[in-house]
Amino acid sequence: MTLDVGVIGVGMIGQEHIRRLDGGPGGSRVVAVADAAAERAATVAGQLPAAKALPSGEELIASDAVDAVVVTSWGPTHEAYVLACIAAGKPVFCEKPLATTQEACRRIVDAEVAAGRRLVQVGFNRRYDPAHRALKAAVDGGAIGTPLLVHCAHRNASSPPHYTRDMSIADTAIHEIDELRWLLGREITAAQVFTPRKSSRGGELQDPLLVLFEMADGVLVDVEVSVNIHYGYEIRCEVSGETGTVELAQPAPVTIRREGTVAGLVPADWRERFTLSYDIELREWADTVAGGRPPQGPSAWDGYVAQIVADAALHSAHHGGRVEVEVPPRPDLYVPAAAQ
Amino acid sequence: MTLDVGVIGVGMIGQEHIRRLDGGPGGSRVVAVADAAAERAATVAGQLPAAKALPSGEELIASDAVDAVVVTSWGPTHEAYVLACIAAGKPVFCEKPLATTQEACRRIVDAEVAAGRRLVQVGFNRRYDPAHRALKAAVDGGAIGTPLLVHCAHRNASSPPHYTRDMSIADTAIHEIDELRWLLGREITAAQVFTPRKSSRGGELQDPLLVLFEMADGVLVDVEVSVNIHYGYEIRCEVSGETGTVELAQPAPVTIRREGTVAGLVPADWRERFTLSYDIELREWADTVAGGRPPQGPSAWDGYVAQIVADAALHSAHHGGRVEVEVPPRPDLYVPAAAQ
Amino acid sequence: MTLDVGVIGVGMIGQEHIRRLDGGPGGSRVVAVADAAAERAATVAGQLPAAKALPSGEELIASDAVDAVVVTSWGPTHEAYVLACIAAGKPVFCEKPLATTQEACRRIVDAEVAAGRRLVQVGFNRRYDPAHRALKAAVDGGAIGTPLLVHCAHRNASSPPHYTRDMSIADTAIHEIDELRWLLGREITAAQVFTPRKSSRGGELQDPLLVLFEMADGVLVDVEVSVNIHYGYEIRCEVSGETGTVELAQPAPVTIRREGTVAGLVPADWRERFTLSYDIELREWADTVAGGRPPQGPSAWDGYVAQIVADAALHSAHHGGRVEVEVPPRPDLYVPAAAQ
Amino acid sequence: MTLDVGVIGVGMIGQEHIRRLDGGPGGSRVVAVADAAAERAATVAGQLPAAKALPSGEELIASDAVDAVVVTSWGPTHEAYVLACIAAGKPVFCEKPLATTQEACRRIVDAEVAAGRRLVQVGFNRRYDPAHRALKAAVDGGAIGTPLLVHCAHRNASSPPHYTRDMSIADTAIHEIDELRWLLGREITAAQVFTPRKSSRGGELQDPLLVLFEMADGVLVDVEVSVNIHYGYEIRCEVSGETGTVELAQPAPVTIRREGTVAGLVPADWRERFTLSYDIELREWADTVAGGRPPQGPSAWDGYVAQIVADAALHSAHHGGRVEVEVPPRPDLYVPAAAQ
Repeated sequence: MTLDVGVIGVGMIGQEHIRRLDGGPGGSRVVAVADAAAERAATVAGQLPAAKALPSGEELIASDAVDAVVVTSWGPTHEAYVLACIAAGKPVFCEKPLATTQEACRRIVDAEVAAGRRLVQVGFNRRYDPAHRALKAAVDGGAIGTPLLVHCAHRNASSPPHYTRDMSIADTAIHEIDELRWLLGREITAAQVFTPRKSSRGGELQDPLLVLFEMADGVLVDVEVSVNIHYGYEIRCEVSGETGTVELAQPAPVTIRREGTVAGLVPADWRERFTLSYDIELREWADTVAGGRPPQGPSAWDGYVAQIVADAALHSAHHGGRVEVEVPPRPDLYVPAAAQ
Repeated sequence: MTLDVGVIGVGMIGQEHIRRLDGGPGGSRVVAVADAAAERAATVAGQLPAAKALPSGEELIASDAVDAVVVTSWGPTHEAYVLACIAAGKPVFCEKPLATTQEACRRIVDAEVAAGRRLVQVGFNRRYDPAHRALKAAVDGGAIGTPLLVHCAHRNASSPPHYTRDMSIADTAIHEIDELRWLLGREITAAQVFTPRKSSRGGELQDPLLVLFEMADGVLVDVEVSVNIHYGYEIRCEVSGETGTVELAQPAPVTIRREGTVAGLVPADWRERFTLSYDIELREWADTVAGGRPPQGPSAWDGYVAQIVADAALHSAHHGGRVEVEVPPRPDLYVPAAAQ
Repeated sequence: MTLDVGVIGVGMIGQEHIRRLDGGPGGSRVVAVADAAAERAATVAGQLPAAKALPSGEELIASDAVDAVVVTSWGPTHEAYVLACIAAGKPVFCEKPLATTQEACRRIVDAEVAAGRRLVQVGFNRRYDPAHRALKAAVDGGAIGTPLLVHCAHRNASSPPHYTRDMSIADTAIHEIDELRWLLGREITAAQVFTPRKSSRGGELQDPLLVLFEMADGVLVDVEVSVNIHYGYEIRCEVSGETGTVELAQPAPVTIRREGTVAGLVPADWRERFTLSYDIELREWADTVAGGRPPQGPSAWDGYVAQIVADAALHSAHHGGRVEVEVPPRPDLYVPAAAQ
Repeated sequence: MTLDVGVIGVGMIGQEHIRRLDGGPGGSRVVAVADAAAERAATVAGQLPAAKALPSGEELIASDAVDAVVVTSWGPTHEAYVLACIAAGKPVFCEKPLATTQEACRRIVDAEVAAGRRLVQVGFNRRYDPAHRALKAAVDGGAIGTPLLVHCAHRNASSPPHYTRDMSIADTAIHEIDELRWLLGREITAAQVFTPRKSSRGGELQDPLLVLFEMADGVLVDVEVSVNIHYGYEIRCEVSGETGTVELAQPAPVTIRREGTVAGLVPADWRERFTLSYDIELREWADTVAGGRPPQGPSAWDGYVAQIVADAALHSAHHGGRVEVEVPPRPDLYVPAAAQ
């Protein structure tokens, strides 16, 4: 039942996932790593009890020592590695995005469908956050009646120099895209991006954005995307239903009274806010695939559809107006058993 | 210094304002009432120590016994009463709306400009709510940097049978229209109405609505208008700025732990939520006009511009799309002294 | 129905009450003032439309122009002024403490009983604070079942140089003493004062204190009294009952996100925290006595019993141990009509 | 580096810990179980991939297959198992209480001191709760200045039929006893138990209790112990310092608006509230002892001192009055390296 994992891409997020997987849940351990920077791979492997550094992701995937693969390399490399895993018949956990274009995502979906079984899980970690799960439980449990409107805010204290407006959608709001599909159990049918007054803190960047999404049942969602809001990192979400609302509570564990205020501390960044969700995500994935079962988390299909929606939003950001989302028919492989 | 007030229209809100003004702040008292239902006027007058029932609003306005007038009659009658007060040179506090069309509002503005001095105050009570004042103080004080986005929700537990979608804008969201102009110190330049999934609790009514407003400096505002949300009455507002945000706190005075929850009570309706703001509004008005000074609160101009914006939003609601708001040049009478 | 009020003692709190009463609720106005500092009395009178400065409190009480008296002078002078008001048959609102010893309070009670009607109200303003009223409403309404324990904290940012440990009880915790009797509808039967680690911010002062009160039905109350806690002014109270608890909510009207925190602002001092309660207290008093009715607020009896309890707590503070409170039989004059 | 664990006592808490340890962190797995009910041991072992049921705890401790032991059996059996582990030189995690009398605890301490190295960890899980860790971080970080007072509440929705007043101290408040020593870094020097009005929900049980603890530096602590408060399970703690306070925030992950309230859900019991703390506690323990290091968590000494304090509080509960706590000199084995 031990799961021997290979990790491709051992930058910051890769190393964090290694910490989660080595000697960790599901009896998993990391037996191989690979990285474009061979030296980094060697260093990381040297710190692990059972891992070798391999010269390439391809060799890692092919290695008999590797039962399952985690892809945390640079986004443009995802497609090739995931396709190779499918070809090798090995479970693969791929950090978001699944791939950087919807065409690439489609090729992954097609390969998996051709293989006839689910091997791919995409790293949309919100689905594993206890607060987001409580949000969904309240909605699904009928606490607020049928949902009608959703208000979201995705706020980062600051953005790195290379950050672009497209990344506000493709790297940042993509979390809301997957979350909304999961939370509401409906597809997104249209997107429209609005540009509020520009913050002076983001240089040339058009920040913040306001994005409207329409769901298949008419639910309307507004998302504030602010990536230079300085005060800290925060994810807000309120679902407004027919009889009430439910929203994420402020996650501060303690309340401090000092200097004229009663205050909770805000996380500095997504790592601090979502560490526990990554722990759960990787544990559930490792437990599942170690048991020989197909992954239960976000699928290649979810990664593909998220990319289609992001592309619609990007089209709106570039050309203005409301852009309809065309989601192709869902292959049977991705229809939940209960729904078939 | 005693202010002798006449009140036209003694329904629920009229009677509440009488309670606030009779033997009340500024040494004010109610000396005359009038109502379309003469019997009701007589009853109300009979309960007051110093008031007579007069046969019509016009006679009330003309009465030498009346120093200042409060108009709380049916909306379509406002224009004539306010114009009569201006003609008589008497201060008039008119409940919102100032008048039911922008043309009527314009006639009031023109009459007041012709009279050469401010006599009219419109009942936009939000400006007197301590929480909204604290919100504005935080924004003006620079606590969050330059505002960029605003999120509002205006929620009523239920709407009366005669309530229409137009009222969602003209009677309900009009409070946000005035509030935003006051809070941000900018004009609204465009409005667009979206229709989310319809609540089953409002019969034929299209409820909720999502309204986007654009401010002159690019600030973007989304407003949820839900008038059948069942759980109670609530006004939410968060201003998102360059370095932080400020939002209205939940106004429950106590926290109750019972039956598996830690809960604050939500007001049942606007009267419960805003009683204190009406107290302050009427006290400040009476204090000001008793001292012979022009009213300092929302002006006829504010009432007029709110109507122009509401008409733009209604046009969007009926015909779709983004509708630009055309605000005519502001007469000098309404330019704040400091700005001249 | 106009109430002509005389005010004895026009320091800070006196002037604030004048603002509340002149041209204020109940049609009240201030017609006379007196102060140990004659010049200050003259200055204050000069700023009021209808007030004269009189040479002494005694002359003010005797003046035919004065219908009712407000005593906001130095504590040791209260007894004589209140007794004079009773002798003159005039309603008197006396700021707390009613008098500085329980013997003096007893003389006032005896005089009022001899006069055969209630004329005295004591300024325990907590009973008029909307949050404290909501607290009592929740307890009385059964929201938490029978009360069993109460936790209180009374915190001041800093204490003035002349402040003593005795004042922590006699001037500060005396508010909790009256509040507990009112909130729980029971007498306090014992008091015990504990001395925690001493704050370095209060010089020689033993600060904070922890006071335990036992109520007649066994409810146990702990009160933190901290008068140099720096962060601001705050009153906390949680009543723990058989099925739940109710506590005062944090009163900040807005929530500000900035610099890594989600924060509400704390009031700087009692004036900021309790302004509204004073407004309501004076309005209700003026409305009541202007109508010729006996005052409905805290009575001379309440002032007397509070002093008895404070003395018991002071005895414990000086000599240690649990000190029982001996409350003499309540004269019929102070038994609520409903209970007779 | 794999840690092979034996578990003695496989009731509810034992099974939960097995779930945490088998195929879990530190590469740990459960290889043996024992239980007074042999059949239950067999059933549990049968569900585990690598575990055998052994006929007795003693045999389990002696088994060469077992690297480390978890004791989750009935309290009175703890002493013998822990002593056997020390004799066998094996690390042992013992659920609280370490033993049911302070004499038994002392024998464990003496045995461990004689063995010359730390092998024992006691299951005081609060130290692993993220919120309690944030509380301690705020205090240690100077956010509130020097602590002066602490207010605690330990509330259970209901108590089982066999629950006694002594258990309110020895099984319930013992968590606060350990927490206070850890949080404040000082010994408890005295205890006094007060009996408030008795709840009608606990049958004959004297519930709630109010316990006062004095710390070595004069900090005073009041603890409400309510074990039938019906509304849910809650742990409250506020530390009041020289310049501010810090308290545990309400842990609800979402805020629900429905039926006239804005509410967070309260955990039903300690398991729901503290699951994550148990996860962290067992993970850190397994990681540490798998690496051959002495356990870093609460020691046998901590278990012994907690029992001494509990006995003092029980003496006060039975005989009244303030009872001083006599803590013997701490053996060098338990002095933190940094302090030696």
